[in-house]
Amino acid sequence: MEIYADNGATTRLSSAALDAMLPFLKDDFGNPSSIHSFGIKAADAISRARRTVAGRLGAREDEIYFNSGGSESITQAITSAAEYGAEHGKRHIITTAIEHHAVLNALKRLGRSGFVITVLPVGTDGTVDPDSVRDTIRDDTALVSVMFANNEIGTFQPVREIGRICRERGVLFHTDAVQATGHVPVNAGDIGADYISASAHKFHGPKGAGILFARREAPVSEIIFGGPQERGARAGTENVPAVVGAAAALEEACETMDENFRYVTSLREKLIDGLLEIPGTILNGSRQKRLPGNVNVSFPGINGESLVILLDMKGIKVSTGSACNSVSTEPSYVLTAIGRSTDEALGSVRFTPDEGNTPEEIDRIIYTVKDSLDKLR
Amino acid sequence: MEIYADNGATTRLSSAALDAMLPFLKDDFGNPSSIHSFGIKAADAISRARRTVAGRLGAREDEIYFNSGGSESITQAITSAAEYGAEHGKRHIITTAIEHHAVLNALKRLGRSGFVITVLPVGTDGTVDPDSVRDTIRDDTALVSVMFANNEIGTFQPVREIGRICRERGVLFHTDAVQATGHVPVNAGDIGADYISASAHKFHGPKGAGILFARREAPVSEIIFGGPQERGARAGTENVPAVVGAAAALEEACETMDENFRYVTSLREKLIDGLLEIPGTILNGSRQKRLPGNVNVSFPGINGESLVILLDMKGIKVSTGSACNSVSTEPSYVLTAIGRSTDEALGSVRFTPDEGNTPEEIDRIIYTVKDSLDKLR
Repeated sequence: MEIYADNGATTRLSSAALDAMLPFLKDDFGNPSSIHSFGIKAADAISRARRTVAGRLGAREDEIYFNSGGSESITQAITSAAEYGAEHGKRHIITTAIEHHAVLNALKRLGRSGFVITVLPVGTDGTVDPDSVRDTIRDDTALVSVMFANNEIGTFQPVREIGRICRERGVLFHTDAVQATGHVPVNAGDIGADYISASAHKFHGPKGAGILFARREAPVSEIIFGGPQERGARAGTENVPAVVGAAAALEEACETMDENFRYVTSLREKLIDGLLEIPGTILNGSRQKRLPGNVNVSFPGINGESLVILLDMKGIKVSTGSACNSVSTEPSYVLTAIGRSTDEALGSVRFTPDEGNTPEEIDRIIYTVKDSLDKLR
Repeated sequence: MEIYADNGATTRLSSAALDAMLPFLKDDFGNPSSIHSFGIKAADAISRARRTVAGRLGAREDEIYFNSGGSESITQAITSAAEYGAEHGKRHIITTAIEHHAVLNALKRLGRSGFVITVLPVGTDGTVDPDSVRDTIRDDTALVSVMFANNEIGTFQPVREIGRICRERGVLFHTDAVQATGHVPVNAGDIGADYISASAHKFHGPKGAGILFARREAPVSEIIFGGPQERGARAGTENVPAVVGAAAALEEACETMDENFRYVTSLREKLIDGLLEIPGTILNGSRQKRLPGNVNVSFPGINGESLVILLDMKGIKVSTGSACNSVSTEPSYVLTAIGRSTDEALGSVRFTPDEGNTPEEIDRIIYTVKDSLDKLR
């Protein structure tokens, strides 16, 4: 029996989401822009999905934009703030060293076109100091982009405090909540963010379904041109099944969030306890302030990739760092940023169990890791 | 019984495409970037899909990029050529007056950042004169973007000739083949294009699945930032079901293309003959050089939108112009460009039957249109 504990990479589409999608993959295939009844049915489905997502994120319906995924949401949020900033003589952006590549690469690109990017360090638990954000804001700061929870080590950032600081200083604030949404409460009002990015396939929704929250007053620029879909902010025929599936998945994730949070946290704690019994093992990130389903450990002297492959052969699916970086043989920049040596970083493995896993599976993961480490050492 | 004759807006997902997608919507949900077996299975599926699509488009595998849709493909092709041009002091782009809004709006945006856009007129049948392209190319021309077939009136453009002219002059050439792909042969080698855009939901594939062909030597810039997916050209977890569905749909469309072309052309001719019997009716676009499934006619003095709604109530799904412009009450810029008066343009209706329709349905469309026009007049 296979154990999938790589939910940070992607999740299984829930039955609720698939069931919601199937009619739109079959008979209800209309283009939401068509004015006939097939189109109206599709447009209504998008509206309902938008209402659901807005409600679950504490947003208004006209603050939710559907697109193709988390990277697109992030790129659009950053581009929107940067273009608005540039028009107002503001070409400074603040971020942290452990953001997802979507943030860092979008900013790298802006850096080549005259923006100054301040990359804040994080502490050994992976947390950025809100005071460092406050101290770095300048008169020409266009945007602060700090993630809600890290994709490799699961650490939560103090986004509410950062949001408050940004509001006080009149600076736009984006938070990449791709890993957090559907797992812990992500509420636009609470966070006080101008932009929030999310991706359905991280919470048992379909791939190809991104969500961008942009506060009504926040600028939104197009990055894909064409028709007037998404109120002119995102062209292209809406991916109706994906949008409907995303909403159904978010609904279900939020309904079961409290229960799942407690259960998955108990799995996480059991897994951390078990792995830390292995001599030399280092837990990466904060023990408490982390996503319920994230366990990232380093086994110094071990090649994390080899361990992942060995575990795979034994039916256990986990990862080194984030899936998006998985082809790289460089040590993780996230782990390097929290002070891990190259050796420690290369020896890291990320386990991301969720509510689909059982305590027995956690036991099997622990003893299979022990067994595999014996082989590798 | 409903008659769907709006396949220019979107098409029903084929059973072959849905069947190909379902495993990836269920058990085979891995992230193609994951190095474990679930990831490898997903990555293999993407590779197979790429091989299929490349084969069908006369391209090499490394010339095919998957993304979220036609508008994204078009935006990326234009952005790539424009950025490359700007780096080489070339800031002139040539297009036609009847391109899709994805092309025109992407170019409008470039116009605001210092590019000069030449918009060529088209003749009364909707065809651009290749000599006008040749005569307009300058030393600083970065790109020529001319569509393969128009989305409203179905007219084919002389893309092979334009491709040859562009090659001779060393200018990049993009063709928007969103309406053509899967319906008529679209072969990268034949066209001699540097970029070809296509969208799966126009040929019975899924929504949210775009295809960009970029010749190996053509520059490709990212427009969505993040991980190294699609060889660094398009970040974001691949939408595996959509990619697999797109390939299955294209395979099927190409296998049945000859047969469908003949059959759908016969439906088109029958429909045109029937509609032209109605006094005052004008056929928009070339009678011969048009997509097999496109019939666009004007009923002067009639409001096209009202006719579409009346036909909808009688179970016939068609459109005014393109779905992407359907919320507008402005006359179609495509019809205006081919010389239609405002009155004629506002009285236009687009019928886009396909191989799913029958001659009996065409008869019903014709007499229902006649009947409805009697009511509206």
